[in-house]
Amino acid sequence: MSDRLDFSGRNLYELDSYSVSEIGTIFETAKVMKQIIKRDYKKIPTLRGKTIATLFFEESTRTRISFELAAKRLSADVISFSSSGSSVKKGESLQDTVYTLNAMGIDLYIVRHNCPGVPQLVHKYSQKPVLNAGDGTHAHPTQALLDMFSIWEKRGTLKGLKVTIIGDILHSRVVRSNLIGMKKMGAEVTVCAPRTLMPPKVEEVYVAKCEYDLQKAVEGADVIMALRMQLERQAEGLFPCLGEYAKRYGLSKEVLKYAKDDVLIMHPGPMNRGVEILPEVADSEHSIIIEQVTNGVAVRMALLFLILGGKSNKSNATS
Amino acid sequence: MSDRLDFSGRNLYELDSYSVSEIGTIFETAKVMKQIIKRDYKKIPTLRGKTIATLFFEESTRTRISFELAAKRLSADVISFSSSGSSVKKGESLQDTVYTLNAMGIDLYIVRHNCPGVPQLVHKYSQKPVLNAGDGTHAHPTQALLDMFSIWEKRGTLKGLKVTIIGDILHSRVVRSNLIGMKKMGAEVTVCAPRTLMPPKVEEVYVAKCEYDLQKAVEGADVIMALRMQLERQAEGLFPCLGEYAKRYGLSKEVLKYAKDDVLIMHPGPMNRGVEILPEVADSEHSIIIEQVTNGVAVRMALLFLILGGKSNKSNATS
Amino acid sequence: MSDRLDFSGRNLYELDSYSVSEIGTIFETAKVMKQIIKRDYKKIPTLRGKTIATLFFEESTRTRISFELAAKRLSADVISFSSSGSSVKKGESLQDTVYTLNAMGIDLYIVRHNCPGVPQLVHKYSQKPVLNAGDGTHAHPTQALLDMFSIWEKRGTLKGLKVTIIGDILHSRVVRSNLIGMKKMGAEVTVCAPRTLMPPKVEEVYVAKCEYDLQKAVEGADVIMALRMQLERQAEGLFPCLGEYAKRYGLSKEVLKYAKDDVLIMHPGPMNRGVEILPEVADSEHSIIIEQVTNGVAVRMALLFLILGGKSNKSNATS
Repeated sequence: MSDRLDFSGRNLYELDSYSVSEIGTIFETAKVMKQIIKRDYKKIPTLRGKTIATLFFEESTRTRISFELAAKRLSADVISFSSSGSSVKKGESLQDTVYTLNAMGIDLYIVRHNCPGVPQLVHKYSQKPVLNAGDGTHAHPTQALLDMFSIWEKRGTLKGLKVTIIGDILHSRVVRSNLIGMKKMGAEVTVCAPRTLMPPKVEEVYVAKCEYDLQKAVEGADVIMALRMQLERQAEGLFPCLGEYAKRYGLSKEVLKYAKDDVLIMHPGPMNRGVEILPEVADSEHSIIIEQVTNGVAVRMALLFLILGGKSNKSNATS
Repeated sequence: MSDRLDFSGRNLYELDSYSVSEIGTIFETAKVMKQIIKRDYKKIPTLRGKTIATLFFEESTRTRISFELAAKRLSADVISFSSSGSSVKKGESLQDTVYTLNAMGIDLYIVRHNCPGVPQLVHKYSQKPVLNAGDGTHAHPTQALLDMFSIWEKRGTLKGLKVTIIGDILHSRVVRSNLIGMKKMGAEVTVCAPRTLMPPKVEEVYVAKCEYDLQKAVEGADVIMALRMQLERQAEGLFPCLGEYAKRYGLSKEVLKYAKDDVLIMHPGPMNRGVEILPEVADSEHSIIIEQVTNGVAVRMALLFLILGGKSNKSNATS
Repeated sequence: MSDRLDFSGRNLYELDSYSVSEIGTIFETAKVMKQIIKRDYKKIPTLRGKTIATLFFEESTRTRISFELAAKRLSADVISFSSSGSSVKKGESLQDTVYTLNAMGIDLYIVRHNCPGVPQLVHKYSQKPVLNAGDGTHAHPTQALLDMFSIWEKRGTLKGLKVTIIGDILHSRVVRSNLIGMKKMGAEVTVCAPRTLMPPKVEEVYVAKCEYDLQKAVEGADVIMALRMQLERQAEGLFPCLGEYAKRYGLSKEVLKYAKDDVLIMHPGPMNRGVEILPEVADSEHSIIIEQVTNGVAVRMALLFLILGGKSNKSNATS
């Protein structure tokens, strides 16, 4: 319980600022939250009277709804602010947008933007806790937390597990956050991609193993995570055609043979079925893709609970 | 009370799967819900802790708000998912969209789509109750229920009443659902339209009477329902011009003379005043058009209450 | 308490229909509401069970969110209706849109429209209290109330204060409402603008002082309010260029020297920093621009509380 109080007022920009035991506390809390989501009555009053703002400058129904549900199930009020139809269009600066929202009494911001560093700016201008819901190609720490929680829930630990991540490593903020988080939790991560979609010096920077051949990459894997292939990368000439990509890097039953027998299959969604993953794998007994979504709500509830619940939680719980 | 439990977990795709006594229970429940809407304090806690998703792939502020209000007045949380700005745009399949939402803990789906059969698919993928809020030109059962409830409330029964429906019968899902429901409840339905807007074999398929002449159609009618003329039908060459349509099929005071003295005038809205209905009729003492809207919220509250309230209702009521 | 009951069911189209003592009651109530916004637990149950509709035919994230938060913190349900994606697009008249919403059980409307007089029409069709959230270039009374409250809170009164408003006086509904309200509360208002952006006969119509020279206008001012320069006015040829405007009418530290030492700087937002106001002024210790935003929520909570809370408040409070 004393651990929890450490979260009060914290930001989450990237996982590097969270310790192994803090991530453990998030997992334990998410486990409790998941039980609440599974109940018939899916709500607790912890954050009643708090106002949470989602500040999305990039479209994302999936992530926004996940955070929105997490907040509502903790009984917070949620204000959705998106760049379309807003004063941002009238040329208002980020600074003034945040000043304005903040003056209305926002307790926590959930921020997505295509520029890395915007979550930090939102905190600078608001002095309120900020959760990074994806900033450019930089980081997407709540996705990494839910990915890691999904493995932890199944295997009890990440220590010593071999995790293979396949796809557009170059542009993926999900990978970057997972590389930081999984290393921290003791997993051995292998990244696999065509050379054009692999960042330079990934082995040095993240201490990850780098493979260009899918078969070698998945050999002995405990977990395989396929990434969404952004179809626009083809137009940029980074890979020749979808069929070619699917053939060399798509996850099929055939490929799974090289992995461990009880390999877990993951995907951050939304999937391009038939491109990076075949339905025979996505819908197989190995897949925990759907459960990742449930875990996303649970992990986000845990974060909101830990960061905003803190001391005030005790007084709110009785009201 | 034993009747109510039968509704637990039911879908509503079309009225053919609901019995006369079940529709009666919906009406009785809607009557109670209407009293709640009319109160100063318009809320009951029955569905607190439940999450309802509106999944609209076709725009409709009116119907969406009606469902949203129904859900909120039963204290449920509501998540609105529309196709614009969502992962559907990124090429996600309906299957994966539903899998995703479902994994977040949705208790019931309200679905509108321009393809018939999508509500069934949503149930297949979610295994949760689904209410059809309009699927293509197929069905719109909650509209039919509110139409029938509106008549039942005024006349005590639908049995033996002569109901005349005028307008674009060919493309109307409202008519199809009403034909099924009203027949079931014992009304005699006459449909009236220009030949180009009348489906073939309507008399055989629905056991309805078919008239092309407005005066004959409304003769002795207890209820007249005018349908919205979709102005784009003119471009398709299905009728020559609005003025011509208004002259031959528009509801005027003159036309009402042929109906019963206490005829009820209905319209599913939004109205084209001056086309299918003149203000002198829409705003007359015969018109229950505005009351239909209130009844829409009441009927939808009744459905949500019966389908989701069930047994769990009892335990929720105390929390 | 007897004062409060006078507000029950009132409309707010423009400040001319509110007396000095009524505006005083709004201020006193807003002061209490502001304390609630500043609390950790920002909510009171007064309007639970009520439904408030925001009916915005003109885009405005800022004002809409302010009203929405005000309503939610009083525990009302909020329905947002905007013209895009609605039945208005299908050609429905304002009358039928209001009839429809009203039939769903709306207790109060918040209306923004680019036509003056629409709030009155909404009341005519709904017979429910209406708050004008901006109608064309006519009025924006809640903005004026929050502006006046912000001064009153700092100075204890508006009586005898010299208030200078600078910018596009011609097109500003904020100015028009402030001119009416501030005169009523005893302030002396000076308006300052280029000749092309000054309405004719402003001195006669509003008993305000008119200045074209910025230095003269701010001389001895207790309060200076800069207005947002709508950049499209340049295209209309109403002023030559932004740089020229900023040079002659932009608020700089230099300009403040002519005002009182403790002058308050205000702006309705969103600001064009570097055009009508320099950051050195916007972020100075004189500026209460951010506090205006907080006061906006407080004043709107006060209005909703006074108008809807009334007698029914007492019974609701116990439920």
